[in-house]
Amino acid sequence: MATRDISPSSALGSADTPGFHVELAADRPMALDSGESIGPFTTAYTTCGTLNSDKSNAILVCHALTGDQYVLEQHPVTGKPGWWELMVGPGKSLDTDRYFIICVNVLGGCMGSTGPRDINPETGRPWGLDFPVITIGDMVRAQALLLDHLGIEKLFCVIGGSMGAMQVLEWAARYPDRVFSAIPIAGAARHSAQNIAFHEVGRQAIMADPDWRRGNYLQEQTNPKSGLSVARMAAHITYLSETALHRKFGRRLQGREEISFGFDADFQVESYLRHQGSTFVERFDANSYLYITRAMDYFDLAAEHDGVLAGAFENTSVRFCVISFNSDWLFPTDESREVVRALNAVAANVSFVEIDTDKGHDAFLLDEREFHRTVSGFLEGAADHRGLARK
Amino acid sequence: MATRDISPSSALGSADTPGFHVELAADRPMALDSGESIGPFTTAYTTCGTLNSDKSNAILVCHALTGDQYVLEQHPVTGKPGWWELMVGPGKSLDTDRYFIICVNVLGGCMGSTGPRDINPETGRPWGLDFPVITIGDMVRAQALLLDHLGIEKLFCVIGGSMGAMQVLEWAARYPDRVFSAIPIAGAARHSAQNIAFHEVGRQAIMADPDWRRGNYLQEQTNPKSGLSVARMAAHITYLSETALHRKFGRRLQGREEISFGFDADFQVESYLRHQGSTFVERFDANSYLYITRAMDYFDLAAEHDGVLAGAFENTSVRFCVISFNSDWLFPTDESREVVRALNAVAANVSFVEIDTDKGHDAFLLDEREFHRTVSGFLEGAADHRGLARK
Repeated sequence: MATRDISPSSALGSADTPGFHVELAADRPMALDSGESIGPFTTAYTTCGTLNSDKSNAILVCHALTGDQYVLEQHPVTGKPGWWELMVGPGKSLDTDRYFIICVNVLGGCMGSTGPRDINPETGRPWGLDFPVITIGDMVRAQALLLDHLGIEKLFCVIGGSMGAMQVLEWAARYPDRVFSAIPIAGAARHSAQNIAFHEVGRQAIMADPDWRRGNYLQEQTNPKSGLSVARMAAHITYLSETALHRKFGRRLQGREEISFGFDADFQVESYLRHQGSTFVERFDANSYLYITRAMDYFDLAAEHDGVLAGAFENTSVRFCVISFNSDWLFPTDESREVVRALNAVAANVSFVEIDTDKGHDAFLLDEREFHRTVSGFLEGAADHRGLARK
Repeated sequence: MATRDISPSSALGSADTPGFHVELAADRPMALDSGESIGPFTTAYTTCGTLNSDKSNAILVCHALTGDQYVLEQHPVTGKPGWWELMVGPGKSLDTDRYFIICVNVLGGCMGSTGPRDINPETGRPWGLDFPVITIGDMVRAQALLLDHLGIEKLFCVIGGSMGAMQVLEWAARYPDRVFSAIPIAGAARHSAQNIAFHEVGRQAIMADPDWRRGNYLQEQTNPKSGLSVARMAAHITYLSETALHRKFGRRLQGREEISFGFDADFQVESYLRHQGSTFVERFDANSYLYITRAMDYFDLAAEHDGVLAGAFENTSVRFCVISFNSDWLFPTDESREVVRALNAVAANVSFVEIDTDKGHDAFLLDEREFHRTVSGFLEGAADHRGLARK
């Protein structure tokens, strides 16, 4: 497959991340929703499986807020297995023996795709807050350019959880002719007030860290680790259900028999959260966190259609499978139902499954049998319709 | 009524707060759950109404995490009306024409009762983190000393929401002979893993602020306002329901027609949260926030009874009215139900009401008619049993 490895665009070597890197919008800058434009820019991605001869078996996996392109490959920083290895692989629901899987680090990210930590060619310094504010629409536009580059006209499927689901919905709304089927998981057609509020807490935590330096920490050789860590801790609570937290930790103490009457991490849940915070800062860029949370906040698919969500899907031929988890309080089932209602209103081809689990929002990353069965069952049917040969 | 105004014990004049201040444990230090002891210490409180001749009409109002003794009086810092003026006053559910209301700033607080911002007599410097870690039990023990001082043997009622409810339960469990009736509202007999997690985020936000100076900010003349503000913002989200946030703010913009494609407070909910953060730091002490959240985390009424909550209420003659709100996700109804089940197991006199409201945890501070009716109805019956004359 033709991809072009380009020279590092980042002071931190983000272009050195494993996988493919391609320079897009080299001839003509890509217009952004903000009115600004960007280009050329780098898009980092990974693939698994083999693209068939008529290029009809490609599945685009869209990652969540703090995800990346390492869906199956070992993560280059943490050394952990790919974040969706339960879902993607030979014989898995996203069967790499059958499908060609693409996963793209989003525009604004920090694992190789151009983002605020990269060098602004106009100044020779890291972008920082001079990086243009991007939207879910911009992320998807960049992915479409990548597909052009790869010569893939139409995706067999676009799938993703959380912010990934936002990209899926954007894909289906913006490029209905380039999407055969779509699986938005644990998502929403717009970001709720509560979710904007949680994001704002995270951003304020980062910006309150004096090492953030108004976004210029790379130049000033600091790193707002404390702020980013607090942001991650607050967010992480929202990814789990109260039941899951209770089952996992309850009020159990960490490495001690008695409470310490102090401010150490007496409780396992405290120790766990601190660990989540401190490991996250090793792999994520604080400004990217600002930009990507903002993209989610701005997402409102109905807004361009006078507030009528159905308007985004008029005459769509995309086959949808909308999935939610009943213990997800970050993107509750009601948000998915709104999408389903809009699709029903335009008589779209849609199935909707609410998975019964107590694991909360993060269930889409976990071993939930009914969830995985739903995905493979839907894909099986879609593949038949698409005329993809069985294995 | 005999109270003794003592000389200021705080470098910041916390002993100058309006209302009463009394020095307790002057003869003999008060033992704390941690094994340490404290004394003499100052307890700041307010009263409304008149204590009757046999001192049988006293109601103790216990405040929540960031509350204080200004239940009806104007707040000396914010100038706002008392935090429970909807509940307390002439003709209100807690009728000051009939009852004598006492509200005490908790031990460890920052509105006049001794806490970490006060002067440690042994060093002549503010306590900071040398202040002993206190528990809900210690707060209640201090309140009992105040009642001794006031010559009140038995409270007609002890009432409070959130952390106030924890104190109510502690009162009933620890001093059953000193409590005629008890109204724990939106509370729990132990702090959940999720709630400990949210508190830990707040504490980490404070401790990450370089101006916190390992707790010595008063001496070093700094103030960890940014960290405390982030802590408040995160906590504030948990006080409201998603529905309430949606109704109140939705995705409405703040003072603009269009999103700014930037990191300003575009959305009303962001602006609201920032305001909550920035006003809070004007009236609250960061170390007090650490100590009081810790006291809540440590609360587990069943722990001393081999994990059997009913053991805390064996043979109780206290009349209970347990109240929860169905949209409260911080202290969900299930937590109140556990208390009710334990009380039923010992055949206690208990009524339980789950109020139907979409306003979330903070509903106990708001104008919820059914809630106020429940409180006044219960008190009416209890007053009859207690032989308190009708107005």
